[in-house]
Amino acid sequence: MFIPRLSAKPMFPIVFLNGKYLDKSVATLHVSDLSILRGFGIFDYFRFMAGKPRFLADHLDRFYTSAELMGMDCPIDREELAAVVHTLIDRNDVPAGGIRFVMTGGYSENGYQPTAPNLLAVAYPFKPAPAEQFQAGCRVLLHQYERQLPRVKTTDYIEGIRLLPELKRRNADYPLYVDRDDQVRESDRSNFFIVRDGVLITPIDDILLGVTRKHLLRLAHELGIPTEERAVSKAELLAADEAILASSTKGAMPIAQINGQAIGDGNPGPMTHRLMEAWPAYGAALIAS
Amino acid sequence: MFIPRLSAKPMFPIVFLNGKYLDKSVATLHVSDLSILRGFGIFDYFRFMAGKPRFLADHLDRFYTSAELMGMDCPIDREELAAVVHTLIDRNDVPAGGIRFVMTGGYSENGYQPTAPNLLAVAYPFKPAPAEQFQAGCRVLLHQYERQLPRVKTTDYIEGIRLLPELKRRNADYPLYVDRDDQVRESDRSNFFIVRDGVLITPIDDILLGVTRKHLLRLAHELGIPTEERAVSKAELLAADEAILASSTKGAMPIAQINGQAIGDGNPGPMTHRLMEAWPAYGAALIAS
Repeated sequence: MFIPRLSAKPMFPIVFLNGKYLDKSVATLHVSDLSILRGFGIFDYFRFMAGKPRFLADHLDRFYTSAELMGMDCPIDREELAAVVHTLIDRNDVPAGGIRFVMTGGYSENGYQPTAPNLLAVAYPFKPAPAEQFQAGCRVLLHQYERQLPRVKTTDYIEGIRLLPELKRRNADYPLYVDRDDQVRESDRSNFFIVRDGVLITPIDDILLGVTRKHLLRLAHELGIPTEERAVSKAELLAADEAILASSTKGAMPIAQINGQAIGDGNPGPMTHRLMEAWPAYGAALIAS
Repeated sequence: MFIPRLSAKPMFPIVFLNGKYLDKSVATLHVSDLSILRGFGIFDYFRFMAGKPRFLADHLDRFYTSAELMGMDCPIDREELAAVVHTLIDRNDVPAGGIRFVMTGGYSENGYQPTAPNLLAVAYPFKPAPAEQFQAGCRVLLHQYERQLPRVKTTDYIEGIRLLPELKRRNADYPLYVDRDDQVRESDRSNFFIVRDGVLITPIDDILLGVTRKHLLRLAHELGIPTEERAVSKAELLAADEAILASSTKGAMPIAQINGQAIGDGNPGPMTHRLMEAWPAYGAALIAS
């Protein structure tokens, strides 16, 4: 068997795979798995803090919705999967990190027909984005692309990964996908918002419905900030007062530049600052008991 | 480690994985592989007969082209990979079957950045499509979908696999993908041709350039059949005299029905028969020495 080049001592050595808790070094899938042969899989990812998962109910909702839209049956139910999360946190005995669920099409003898899914849950250390991206804002690159099955958190990140060298070459941190009608949809692993005349605006159609997106809208509501969920064109994005990326790993992150052009005055704006400042306490109040 | 529910005694027990020849039962990838986490991988597939691979040079060309377009470096060169094919055939000691190469984004500690690819080659028994589909023709279902990176043989078959239950429900054998401009592109694992007024026509843009497609065009040329490579609209397909699916596993297969509507008189037509009859000898003459 081939052992990957992981750190010598992983911080979270215990993973869940198909009903068992295993040492990460021996957590493998047979090469007949449909994720390997056919890219057929879904996942979800969330953070845990103080030993408790954040927004767990939302992530479970989305994971089971993804499964349904893919025609997959999760081998364990929602309560059992929640219990896996708590067991993983307990057994790994580290208070904070991230957890990923992955469910694949299973071991397929003919290499195409799905079988009983393989279900995996892995805990990771949480590595925040570079502080500079929060302080000065990040740089994004517009790229024409439409995620297939945008409502499903599939494991398909072919385009995002393929773009990594181009992002580097063009001094950008993240892509922002624009569809054929010049509507801006989402980043590879984040949603986005703009601020225009004091209103916080984010797309709703043809995107992954991010959990951070949902809670940033709620937080805005609590703060008395007006919001709109509707399409945002490339032109409107480029003329916005502020722009923000949103994800579980980022929370709210200011966008400073788009294709090298400054958004607003090129510095994180006042509404972005309000959301960034209120976000940690908002999230901490919603970790699962 | 989890052992998949494979047949007790696989017909081809030896697989190649990262430079080693292993028993299939222990051929696994660690769960940090980017095919599992992010669907990031390419592959190729071809048949071998009388102990020799068919159209091997074409498949090697395409595999290395796929790698280049994905920004991946194959860990071994073309001659070494060809040697793997011959070794796999020898060690498995069965004269005929199919071989699949798979190359993934590798074991990634952060779950996104590609590392050294994992390279796999597996031999399988060859199971032809049902004889009825060759005799009476197959039934296809039109479906709006555009493969991402159509020139790359990625492992992304999310849509084709997700469609399997719908194909069954609608009495269809295969999908046929139609783009937003009503041009018919390709099937999930096959190219397609139509026959109109004695001309064999097949798309060339925005499709996977199939090896069987290429050789059926050459065979047609040898047989004196005029050919065209150009876009085919849905309307033109439905009005065609004959329609054909083409793939390594199928060779040329007549299409009898599209969305329940007969093509031509609903029976395999004369040009399809000519190609089907000439195909085995054409292919046999081009197995690698």
